[in-house]
Amino acid sequence: MGSRDPRAGVRALFNPGSIALVGASEKSGWSLSTFGNLRAHGFAGPVHLVNPRGGLVHGQAAYPSLAELPGPVDLAYVMVPTRAVLPVLKEGAAAGVRNYVVLTAGFGEAGEDGARLEAEVVAFAREAGLTVLGPNGNGYINAAAGITPYGLPIPPPLLRGPVGVVLQSGALASSVLAFSQARNIGLSLLTSMGNESLVTVPDVIDYLVDDPATKVIALFLESVRDPDAFARAARRALAAGKPVVALKIGRSRLASRTARAHTGALVGDDAVVDAAFRRLGVIRVRSLEDLIVTAGLLASAGPLPGPRIGVVTPSGGASEIIADRAEDEGLDLPAFAPSTVEALAEILPPFATVQNPLDVTGYVLIDRTLLGRALDVVAADPGIDAVMLLTDLPRFVPPDPSVPMANFEAHARRIAASPRPVVVVGNTLTDVSEFGRSVQERTGFPHVVGGIEHGMHAIGAAVRWSAERERALARRPTAGERVAVDGASGVWAEHRAAALLAGAGLPVVPSELVGGEDAAVAAADRFGYPVVLKAAADGLAHKSDIGGVRLGLTGPDAVRAAYREVMAALAGHDGAGALVQPQRSGGVELLAGIVRDPAWGLTLAVGLGGVWVEVLRDSALRLLPVDARDVREALGELRGAALLDGARGTKPADLDAVAGVVARVAALAASLGDRLESLEINPLRVDGSDVEILDALVTWT
Amino acid sequence: MGSRDPRAGVRALFNPGSIALVGASEKSGWSLSTFGNLRAHGFAGPVHLVNPRGGLVHGQAAYPSLAELPGPVDLAYVMVPTRAVLPVLKEGAAAGVRNYVVLTAGFGEAGEDGARLEAEVVAFAREAGLTVLGPNGNGYINAAAGITPYGLPIPPPLLRGPVGVVLQSGALASSVLAFSQARNIGLSLLTSMGNESLVTVPDVIDYLVDDPATKVIALFLESVRDPDAFARAARRALAAGKPVVALKIGRSRLASRTARAHTGALVGDDAVVDAAFRRLGVIRVRSLEDLIVTAGLLASAGPLPGPRIGVVTPSGGASEIIADRAEDEGLDLPAFAPSTVEALAEILPPFATVQNPLDVTGYVLIDRTLLGRALDVVAADPGIDAVMLLTDLPRFVPPDPSVPMANFEAHARRIAASPRPVVVVGNTLTDVSEFGRSVQERTGFPHVVGGIEHGMHAIGAAVRWSAERERALARRPTAGERVAVDGASGVWAEHRAAALLAGAGLPVVPSELVGGEDAAVAAADRFGYPVVLKAAADGLAHKSDIGGVRLGLTGPDAVRAAYREVMAALAGHDGAGALVQPQRSGGVELLAGIVRDPAWGLTLAVGLGGVWVEVLRDSALRLLPVDARDVREALGELRGAALLDGARGTKPADLDAVAGVVARVAALAASLGDRLESLEINPLRVDGSDVEILDALVTWT
Repeated sequence: MGSRDPRAGVRALFNPGSIALVGASEKSGWSLSTFGNLRAHGFAGPVHLVNPRGGLVHGQAAYPSLAELPGPVDLAYVMVPTRAVLPVLKEGAAAGVRNYVVLTAGFGEAGEDGARLEAEVVAFAREAGLTVLGPNGNGYINAAAGITPYGLPIPPPLLRGPVGVVLQSGALASSVLAFSQARNIGLSLLTSMGNESLVTVPDVIDYLVDDPATKVIALFLESVRDPDAFARAARRALAAGKPVVALKIGRSRLASRTARAHTGALVGDDAVVDAAFRRLGVIRVRSLEDLIVTAGLLASAGPLPGPRIGVVTPSGGASEIIADRAEDEGLDLPAFAPSTVEALAEILPPFATVQNPLDVTGYVLIDRTLLGRALDVVAADPGIDAVMLLTDLPRFVPPDPSVPMANFEAHARRIAASPRPVVVVGNTLTDVSEFGRSVQERTGFPHVVGGIEHGMHAIGAAVRWSAERERALARRPTAGERVAVDGASGVWAEHRAAALLAGAGLPVVPSELVGGEDAAVAAADRFGYPVVLKAAADGLAHKSDIGGVRLGLTGPDAVRAAYREVMAALAGHDGAGALVQPQRSGGVELLAGIVRDPAWGLTLAVGLGGVWVEVLRDSALRLLPVDARDVREALGELRGAALLDGARGTKPADLDAVAGVVARVAALAASLGDRLESLEINPLRVDGSDVEILDALVTWT
Repeated sequence: MGSRDPRAGVRALFNPGSIALVGASEKSGWSLSTFGNLRAHGFAGPVHLVNPRGGLVHGQAAYPSLAELPGPVDLAYVMVPTRAVLPVLKEGAAAGVRNYVVLTAGFGEAGEDGARLEAEVVAFAREAGLTVLGPNGNGYINAAAGITPYGLPIPPPLLRGPVGVVLQSGALASSVLAFSQARNIGLSLLTSMGNESLVTVPDVIDYLVDDPATKVIALFLESVRDPDAFARAARRALAAGKPVVALKIGRSRLASRTARAHTGALVGDDAVVDAAFRRLGVIRVRSLEDLIVTAGLLASAGPLPGPRIGVVTPSGGASEIIADRAEDEGLDLPAFAPSTVEALAEILPPFATVQNPLDVTGYVLIDRTLLGRALDVVAADPGIDAVMLLTDLPRFVPPDPSVPMANFEAHARRIAASPRPVVVVGNTLTDVSEFGRSVQERTGFPHVVGGIEHGMHAIGAAVRWSAERERALARRPTAGERVAVDGASGVWAEHRAAALLAGAGLPVVPSELVGGEDAAVAAADRFGYPVVLKAAADGLAHKSDIGGVRLGLTGPDAVRAAYREVMAALAGHDGAGALVQPQRSGGVELLAGIVRDPAWGLTLAVGLGGVWVEVLRDSALRLLPVDARDVREALGELRGAALLDGARGTKPADLDAVAGVVARVAALAASLGDRLESLEINPLRVDGSDVEILDALVTWT
């Protein structure tokens, strides 16, 4: 007993040589399905049945307990009543059974009593070194190995293939299975996680990263329960070149509430999830269709080297839809090179228009080689990164099946010979028919992506994933330098934050902390008028709210009056003083805040100051660490980004300078240790290449 | 011969009792397909074949010309070479054949020579009173009547049903046919329009509005060639309660260019198309899937009375996806009424969470009535407008088909008895299998919308269409009052525009036109300082560009200096003067411009002033006429809309007051006749309920 290498445990869980169904019964749909699935889909090892009453079940003898089975059992599939689960595990552990799928519900998802029961199961399983999937999950389908302990029917054919699917949902597992089958996308493994009380989503991702049958990992997530473990697993997948595609719900407030009701798990700020997934190279999609279509494309065409797509279609209408969707997805459909145009003009009918996207016209019905020859020409264009070929597989068996067979075989040869990746996309999202499947099998014609709408999304996602992979890999979560800070608690007065920033070499507006009117005026005289006078006191997060900020002071009298007012507003604050600064004008005001997200850690938000952040909530997020390029990209995502380009006669902001300062602020924040709650610069004034921090707030836990 | 009622002509075109295929030939795929389609899909009348060489074609005797046919012909399907088309029409007209489908290409789409030929065909057909679909189109499928003169294969079964489809694309017609068939959505008529040189999209819409078999009209549009005719047809559809769903390409610049290459037709400003479709109650979608899925939903469930949806699912994961998508689509999933909660708590297992969206849990596998009983309860909730039931049709024949039959029959009864519309949606977009189809046929189970992703879009569209229909119908394009205007030409000086507006009772800032420094100072003294002094000259569209606007003049000397500078800037302008106005401050500046769109006519744009319109291009459009509610909604669409709610201590804008003024400006513009090119108010100052026009520009053609 005792501890066990978790990866070895998960490997054993998914690859048993013998299985026992505990709670097998003629009356249970789950038992019938699981037994039927194991028999129908090629499980070669023994399947034992356990039922306390013994007798014949599913036409074979059942044993009263795991202890009494005639041979060793690698996996027990448990569908006994809730209270019987722990005794079964104990019995199994004593009998040497180390791997379990627990289908039984009524645990943590069912309330406090269930949660207590689940905690007991977990404690025992940990102690005994058991590997348990569930409880409250339907099990898994290891299609690659033909091992299918899964409690719902698996309609044939079970397509083996390169996509590994992990779902925090039972019912959707069968929908995803059906949809993948409809699209002729084979699976390596499909797991329904249940309550994830022992084996977790990151555990299964780790398994799939190591699984040679898996090329792409598809996730349905209600919540990311352990962000650190998830991040580690996602980074391993990235390093292994296996894209992770995820449908993560919780974009809406209602979905967050709904998920909380189902799982009890907290759903964090969705924008931070976006930022985290982007950082980890996880492709986020919004529909089940996009999840599987995107995974299918990545598994068949692999990474796409760039956004410049040459499009070959037999339809003007389709090529226009493709043009619209390309713009949505940030894909380029560049003009063809002169040599391409010339070669296409030679083969196309005179009424065709030679352009990208290319419509070779309905003449394909007369000349069956036209589409293929156009594909050859476009695939050779030096200015494109990949080709999109619009073609549907045949849906019905035609009078003479040899015609499409020959046709698709010829296409398959051209595609295989293409110097650039060719993604084949159908017009609409329909099932691949049995005949279509046989055409693919017999001709080697590649995967056909399901329709223009989802296909363009998938191509866009594949291009973005390919482009970001290198960067994401380069960004190891380094420990970094730690800066020791004295008095790191509560809310710091502005001058302490400013000193910290200035000490790190950042451009902070000059200021003087003053303890009296005379000193304030002297400071103002030194800076030159107008000046700003601000309350300075630890524990004061919102100076303006108490009247602690006085702007545009044009002379000594104004400074004196402002000092008195600010000190009056500060009455009761220990160690209070005032800060005098020169007043700046012109330029654009930005905000850059680093806040510790409870799930994902330090997160940078950038935005335009004033109404943009306060009223319009226009900000862009990045997980730390960030470099200047990350910050520039984040600034470019702002709805008001065009204002930085120098609208209405103001100087264009030097975005490199801004991004450099913000990246250094973020690096400083990252070096300040776990007690940093937030470090906010507001405003960060930018006037051309002049970048200056005008105010800063540091908060410690 | 001669003229003919166009609607009667189109009716005859789509409902012939006898058909001749002209250019029939064993060697032509089009001939084979058309002949085969007519034979396979139930055309009961005679099909004659015409081939100049006579002989046996498709197993029957061919005649050398239309003139020599043994009986009358209601429709000639023409697939002869381009130059032979006109002679065939002449021969046919002489023989009394009045309706034609011309499949032949090589006309307007092929260049100047083809365009000349097409013009000759059109002139002859008009003169002879012929009704011609095409040229360069594949024909049509009148599924309702089993009449299928269509040049590409129609795989069986041809599903008859309530959706009429009109496409400005040949290749996509077959894709739409296949997709509709896959989704078990029956069609009434499907037409491929070709070059639309005689029968146009609006003609076919008119036919479908009158066609009792058609409930919903689905369009694929490259361009709207005749906006007035399109608008008339769309309004007829609206009045008849037949929703029009349209996939109109050209959202991207690239698609506009691509479409222009294919059709030669200009693609207008896409945002104006959006505004026009909204005004006409046309539902705009962005994918072929959404086109047919939305049409299918509207054809089966009909209009949906409101946005409050009660959702019943057997899946937590799916209900969370639905919650996310509901927010995207502006749908409400309100909390259930206490009586509903109580009734659900009684029937659901204890571990279920009673909420909307409802997950009745995997317990449905044990209790097959659970989902249906929950449906009954939710459908009775007084706070919802419609129910969404998540259920997939079975994909495969199970060992005992009577089980799903009984199950779906029970559901069908509950749905039929529901006091509120029930929309059934599947998890993902897959084909309806043959078994699924037979379940529907035998149990009366309603249409299942294809997947959550496209289904939620369709529900949102149906709710919006239902809500807007009444309003759109109420808005007849009335002639309205015409206001006679003197000197309506060129660009008017601001004071003339201001006088026009003030004359219509609109709130315009007071001003005086002055001809000298003294007069300027006297005017400023009367208004009180600060004042604004502006150049006033006809033909001057952009005063600021020539230095013709001086703001914030605080005394007589400043006014004198400004006057001299402005007059110097105006040197060379006839009848130039200056306008003195009080300077306003505070509030928010808006812009409201009415511009004549070349396709759709007068269009109102509203936006926030300054950077919002100039840099961020944040504006919202509405076709005229508009009422105050339209304007309010347009203001609400602005990205910066929150700024009108009174950000940062400013007064909230009185949106009713703003909308009232803008609607009156629009009404004035509409009354000014066809020579009005644009009427722009910029800025329109709003301070609480104080709304004032500070500058206006009127341009005439």
